Amino acid sequence: MTRIQFDEMKATIKLAFLNAGMPEEKAGICAEIHTESSRDGVYSHGLNRVERFVDYINKGWVDVNASPTIEANLGTIEIYNGNLGPGITNAIYAMNRATEIAAIQGLGLVTLNNTTHWMRGGAYGWQAAEKGFLGICWTNTESCMPAWGTKSTCIGNNPFIMAIPRKEGHIVLDMAMSQFSYGKLQVTRLKNEKLPFAGGFDQDGNLTDEPGVIEETRRILPMGYWKGSGFAVMLDLFSTLLSGGLTTAGIDKYGKGSCGSCCQVFIAIDPLKINTQEFIDQALNGTLEQLKTAVPANENGEIFYPGEQSLKTRLENMEMGIPVDEGIWERVKELAKSR
Amino acid sequence: MTRIQFDEMKATIKLAFLNAGMPEEKAGICAEIHTESSRDGVYSHGLNRVERFVDYINKGWVDVNASPTIEANLGTIEIYNGNLGPGITNAIYAMNRATEIAAIQGLGLVTLNNTTHWMRGGAYGWQAAEKGFLGICWTNTESCMPAWGTKSTCIGNNPFIMAIPRKEGHIVLDMAMSQFSYGKLQVTRLKNEKLPFAGGFDQDGNLTDEPGVIEETRRILPMGYWKGSGFAVMLDLFSTLLSGGLTTAGIDKYGKGSCGSCCQVFIAIDPLKINTQEFIDQALNGTLEQLKTAVPANENGEIFYPGEQSLKTRLENMEMGIPVDEGIWERVKELAKSR
Repeated sequence: MTRIQFDEMKATIKLAFLNAGMPEEKAGICAEIHTESSRDGVYSHGLNRVERFVDYINKGWVDVNASPTIEANLGTIEIYNGNLGPGITNAIYAMNRATEIAAIQGLGLVTLNNTTHWMRGGAYGWQAAEKGFLGICWTNTESCMPAWGTKSTCIGNNPFIMAIPRKEGHIVLDMAMSQFSYGKLQVTRLKNEKLPFAGGFDQDGNLTDEPGVIEETRRILPMGYWKGSGFAVMLDLFSTLLSGGLTTAGIDKYGKGSCGSCCQVFIAIDPLKINTQEFIDQALNGTLEQLKTAVPANENGEIFYPGEQSLKTRLENMEMGIPVDEGIWERVKELAKSR
Repeated sequence: MTRIQFDEMKATIKLAFLNAGMPEEKAGICAEIHTESSRDGVYSHGLNRVERFVDYINKGWVDVNASPTIEANLGTIEIYNGNLGPGITNAIYAMNRATEIAAIQGLGLVTLNNTTHWMRGGAYGWQAAEKGFLGICWTNTESCMPAWGTKSTCIGNNPFIMAIPRKEGHIVLDMAMSQFSYGKLQVTRLKNEKLPFAGGFDQDGNLTDEPGVIEETRRILPMGYWKGSGFAVMLDLFSTLLSGGLTTAGIDKYGKGSCGSCCQVFIAIDPLKINTQEFIDQALNGTLEQLKTAVPANENGEIFYPGEQSLKTRLENMEMGIPVDEGIWERVKELAKSR
């Protein structure tokens, strides 16, 4: 397996983005987030997504020069137009602004309408936690999943993120509404394996753990069946009602590319305005201890808190280099060559 | 099937609560919420829960005279001690206060520590929507579910609610973190049926759809496996960090009865501070139309938006009376007899 050091990957991706016309600062931020995603094991939205993002820029679906502009300021709530700028820089701006409001008022809620794909949603949870804030964020997307009870795709696979800062490792939940991502289906199929649990429906409408079959029907399963389906609908509607942007149904009609013209919600809360660090440490560590000391389901089985495995992968990949698909790495290096 | 009219049920439950020592106003509010839960089809937390609530009062686990007292006011955020008062009146107070803050500031976040079981969490979503506000709320609970990867119960089955006001019927998601409730397991077992999907683990650690087996192992399945498990942990920690109250681990140690000394979060947002009613109507109705016109999974299958089935049950039960278990109804009538 080929492994690439963090700095080399980041520099290469940055060159690719500069070549695509991105301004220096934005190219640096986007390269960092893509590299961090691969570093943390979210390969689908890291290096592997660079070519597609460049393609979107070339098609004019992302405006590399655009930044968020404010549309409304309600004090605790601020609403921005993302102006179809890079989803990553827009989202970083919005979460940062939420933490700035929270630093003064305890809580900040910032929304973006008319933005583009933010890549790995967890990035903005880690961002809030890194600054010492509780973070909650989500995005809507185009239709890419059937609702519970439907055969055709009609709801978004909207990721939902919650993050808690913690000295020894932030606690971060980053979950999409489908039980498995298309990335997981592909990886599992390429290994000739089955999914650990049913992940969608076959042609006859039966649940199946065969990844290839689900890739064909496009009938991926919402997590928890009707629960993930309903949650996806609510996240979509809240995104729109809080930002004035397009719903999933609207993105289907007017958006260009995956998540084109989507909208996003960023909430930051300053935990130290509510409790002392000592209280917080006790609450977090007491809960993690309760998890870690529970009887494991399998002998010697390990129990992870949300975000723990990302951190583990991060440390491993920082030490050993980030594993890459050689074909993809070569193509990104090609995009990075000076012309 | 015996059906009881709404007003008769409410009056009977109110008498039972008055007999248990509750003050007039609180008894009226609690009786209304219990009756509404049964009316909407959430039988487990309606009439069926009255005896247990009275038992908690008798044991001194709920202080029928207590109301929330403010502990901190951060502007948008207010934190209250629930003083172990009735979970229903505490929660109604908190969501109402959140809407009052939101009416001025756009958003209000109110938390309760040291409160008691709020019964049906959806009630406070409907409450916010009824007043014209977006609502989000959740509670933590004692350990009653194994985390993903554990055999022993160590996390709460914390319900999460999101609500959107809509003239033709509010859109309300009310979901616990387990795939099925213990109530559903019991009802399914009594009918000698199997669950529609695996709902927990058997003695050997295999997934099973046999409700009785899961009731014995107490190993109910989090929705979406690791996803519902992680979400439950985050909801628990956010409850505590936002309220200064006990975590699930703390409730396990110090709480009395189900949800004794738990903490809760209530968020209200005024949607009309952000968008016009016309925009909102279009966003909601466009999305519901997209759901309703999707290809159904089964021929002539119906697709429901979150909250739609509760509303349907409500209308049916208001017309025909609320179905009751005769034994339970007789026992509540007994509690309601003057002494």
